[in-house]
Amino acid sequence: MANSKYEYVKNFELDDRLPPSNWLVVRIDGCSFHRFSAIHEFEKPNDEHALNLMNACALAMLEQFPDIVFAYGVSDEYRFESHMLSLMSLLHCSKILSITVSFFTSVYVMKWKDFFPQKEMMYPPSFDGRVVCYPKVKIILDYLAWRQVDCHINNQYNTCFWMLVKSGKTEHEAQHVLKGTQKQEKNDLLFEKFGINYNTLPAIFRKGSCVYREMVEEIGKLDKNGCPVKRTRRKVTVGHFDIIKTDFWREHPYIIEEN
Amino acid sequence: MANSKYEYVKNFELDDRLPPSNWLVVRIDGCSFHRFSAIHEFEKPNDEHALNLMNACALAMLEQFPDIVFAYGVSDEYRFESHMLSLMSLLHCSKILSITVSFFTSVYVMKWKDFFPQKEMMYPPSFDGRVVCYPKVKIILDYLAWRQVDCHINNQYNTCFWMLVKSGKTEHEAQHVLKGTQKQEKNDLLFEKFGINYNTLPAIFRKGSCVYREMVEEIGKLDKNGCPVKRTRRKVTVGHFDIIKTDFWREHPYIIEEN
Amino acid sequence: MANSKYEYVKNFELDDRLPPSNWLVVRIDGCSFHRFSAIHEFEKPNDEHALNLMNACALAMLEQFPDIVFAYGVSDEYRFESHMLSLMSLLHCSKILSITVSFFTSVYVMKWKDFFPQKEMMYPPSFDGRVVCYPKVKIILDYLAWRQVDCHINNQYNTCFWMLVKSGKTEHEAQHVLKGTQKQEKNDLLFEKFGINYNTLPAIFRKGSCVYREMVEEIGKLDKNGCPVKRTRRKVTVGHFDIIKTDFWREHPYIIEEN
Amino acid sequence: MANSKYEYVKNFELDDRLPPSNWLVVRIDGCSFHRFSAIHEFEKPNDEHALNLMNACALAMLEQFPDIVFAYGVSDEYRFESHMLSLMSLLHCSKILSITVSFFTSVYVMKWKDFFPQKEMMYPPSFDGRVVCYPKVKIILDYLAWRQVDCHINNQYNTCFWMLVKSGKTEHEAQHVLKGTQKQEKNDLLFEKFGINYNTLPAIFRKGSCVYREMVEEIGKLDKNGCPVKRTRRKVTVGHFDIIKTDFWREHPYIIEEN
Repeated sequence: MANSKYEYVKNFELDDRLPPSNWLVVRIDGCSFHRFSAIHEFEKPNDEHALNLMNACALAMLEQFPDIVFAYGVSDEYRFESHMLSLMSLLHCSKILSITVSFFTSVYVMKWKDFFPQKEMMYPPSFDGRVVCYPKVKIILDYLAWRQVDCHINNQYNTCFWMLVKSGKTEHEAQHVLKGTQKQEKNDLLFEKFGINYNTLPAIFRKGSCVYREMVEEIGKLDKNGCPVKRTRRKVTVGHFDIIKTDFWREHPYIIEEN
Repeated sequence: MANSKYEYVKNFELDDRLPPSNWLVVRIDGCSFHRFSAIHEFEKPNDEHALNLMNACALAMLEQFPDIVFAYGVSDEYRFESHMLSLMSLLHCSKILSITVSFFTSVYVMKWKDFFPQKEMMYPPSFDGRVVCYPKVKIILDYLAWRQVDCHINNQYNTCFWMLVKSGKTEHEAQHVLKGTQKQEKNDLLFEKFGINYNTLPAIFRKGSCVYREMVEEIGKLDKNGCPVKRTRRKVTVGHFDIIKTDFWREHPYIIEEN
Repeated sequence: MANSKYEYVKNFELDDRLPPSNWLVVRIDGCSFHRFSAIHEFEKPNDEHALNLMNACALAMLEQFPDIVFAYGVSDEYRFESHMLSLMSLLHCSKILSITVSFFTSVYVMKWKDFFPQKEMMYPPSFDGRVVCYPKVKIILDYLAWRQVDCHINNQYNTCFWMLVKSGKTEHEAQHVLKGTQKQEKNDLLFEKFGINYNTLPAIFRKGSCVYREMVEEIGKLDKNGCPVKRTRRKVTVGHFDIIKTDFWREHPYIIEEN
Repeated sequence: MANSKYEYVKNFELDDRLPPSNWLVVRIDGCSFHRFSAIHEFEKPNDEHALNLMNACALAMLEQFPDIVFAYGVSDEYRFESHMLSLMSLLHCSKILSITVSFFTSVYVMKWKDFFPQKEMMYPPSFDGRVVCYPKVKIILDYLAWRQVDCHINNQYNTCFWMLVKSGKTEHEAQHVLKGTQKQEKNDLLFEKFGINYNTLPAIFRKGSCVYREMVEEIGKLDKNGCPVKRTRRKVTVGHFDIIKTDFWREHPYIIEEN
């Protein structure tokens, strides 16, 4: 075969199989979204349209990839959890990383006009990604808690910062005001200066977004007696819950279970 | 700091730095493009619009990433070569893989309507990717030769196959006719049955596409005597050359050079 | 500094850190021990001196490396389990592999004359090694069960094989006799032909060797009333237990515990 | 088969194949040899017996492993170069690392009594190791130059330091005297204070040791005219050369040649 002379080049592809029986997190972050959000004039500190577009992408991910059991998103980042259920399957890191990031990007560009009908996309956005393995459930829950604590800290800071800027301060002055302030001081500043009760701001800003399969009851066809048959199925859903406390996980034990 | 309790989860991100002083190939392939091209009714065996869209993506890649020095594309696959010039820079495999595949996907979706103004994109296409390291120039050239030999073999087969199908054979019958035929027999079949001289088919089908920076001469501003000043610059260009023989590489020695 | 011109070569050392919070198995096998045991005339099917030397090495390993919690040995192979307790520590695969294999080899050569006072070591023995990560306790116990099942199958076969050879059969004939026989048939053959009850053979041959820290009670100094004070400490011990059933693990829960 | 229930544990062994067509360096260093050399009263700054034992181990390595083409040793460290000649062979990092480190250790312990007939080995020495890939010859030569520059700097410092200590200074005082001194100042100190011309010290201390295959001429059997037949063969040899300059490499071009 004429090809064989060159086929040795295939030997340079090293095996990048992931260790079995771990939980995988695929994290996806916008590349240079500071610039992307400035050029597309995203609202500060949170742009609901942009967040909803990110959530629509995450929702499409859970519909496309049945192995993804949970996704958590904040700002321009998303984390997808999936468990490598089958010990026998050989899961290659590059394959998992590239197809998830590519699909996410594809949906982002396709759905842009649904969320920004008035704004043209000025240049192609891109996302970077990473796959990380976690050997135990406890650690994956700590991982998610870490992201939600981060969401809270950043959102509280950004809310103060942009209120100060909108009220006439320069960005430099706003930074100076906030330097070294604690959580309570920031809440007081928002309330006293701007009449904002931080805890009543939309949960999507304060908690981030969770995408998962919710059990829903459906009324299906009629049975032979003419009665409608109820059945349950799992429906991909977006919510904004506290995932640091255990309540959500106790109510949805099927999401992160090891079999 | 409230966050620190969970921050240990960052330790699970292992270093995936690539070995320095190697040539990198990023290969990008359409995921399930058999289905994607059927649903979008791509012409067989080659759809010029689809190939031109792929080439436009590759061209955007070389404009976006200065480290990519050459790209070679066939059908729904593309290969990007870049050399890790700086020994000091730490290049992480996941980062390189995800941002290149994501950017490529983003451009593909954005530019779709320029190449298929009449066809709506029915669902989000995605691409998988892989990074492979090659330690020496000779091997990278063998790698490209391997892809172009493959292009030739596949295109010749596909041209015969689809001519037979278009002439009334079933797909099964066409496969049967071609089974075990050699290169010359396929050329004879095309010429005798369909009046097609394979070697005069468009080079884009037979050779694939090369994307690289060509030296071009430009006429710039006038000098103080009023004469236009010529200058050369590198312009990203698409061509369809033989890259198995050494001519192309001898004429463009700056593309794959080790400094 | 004169050295700096060449120091870039250090960048080629890639990070080979192991994933945290896993159980590590270091497996160590004799290289070409078929030849080594022939030249040193090890007794067949089991040489007690050679097994005891291997066990002495394993015992030295647990005394040298406090992180190793359990070792299981059969024939010329040993498996060492250790748990990466500290999530913060960065454990490099090459380091763990090389120092354990090197120390094991060193003890083997040093202690040779204690176990084979009459036999000179004819050439330097060597061992190969491998580090494998297991994310959960259940899997590490399955791993050990797998080794002990293997021990049983091999030892039963080898006992039959060498009894047949010692009774006058050629090696080829012995293989032929045993081909396709089941467990019970082999036990019957041993009993009927050679009067051997397999289950009364020494446990070290049938079960392999376990090395672990046993709780022992010691009588220490006298207290102020002149009574000797009892205290417990952990002492590295060799035993030959069934580790497929759960009894041993229930009696020694502290060995493989996740904290 | 009874075993199959547990055999899934084999899937946790990930492929650790090294990239083909690279030069490999296996580096081997004594573990805690500061303590080992103190307890065994190695002479300072250089113990010829200890260096010769290390060289004997390196020599045995080149005789055992034909793929190793060159070794360079200083103090308690050794570097072995080998080129992955066959692109087809799958070379696993753990295998290469463990068998080389194990064999080196084994020879070290076995040959100890030949070099230290009066000294008993007090405890088992061990070595750690690492495999590093270098894609090009030039880099491998820079790597060796880096080690030899390091040898020079350390040996010059240590020679001064131990002369000062032997002349009555405390270790602390000796450090203080040498702090910040340049190469020439150290040579002057040795000459003026101790009458030592650094450049006439044994080359094994100043240059380290090179182990390689030298072409030697041998007189073989007589031919049919009764004349002895000369033939050349490669013989593993130890020398103490400058390997920073190119002379040695020009005179032995076959050592580091690609394919």
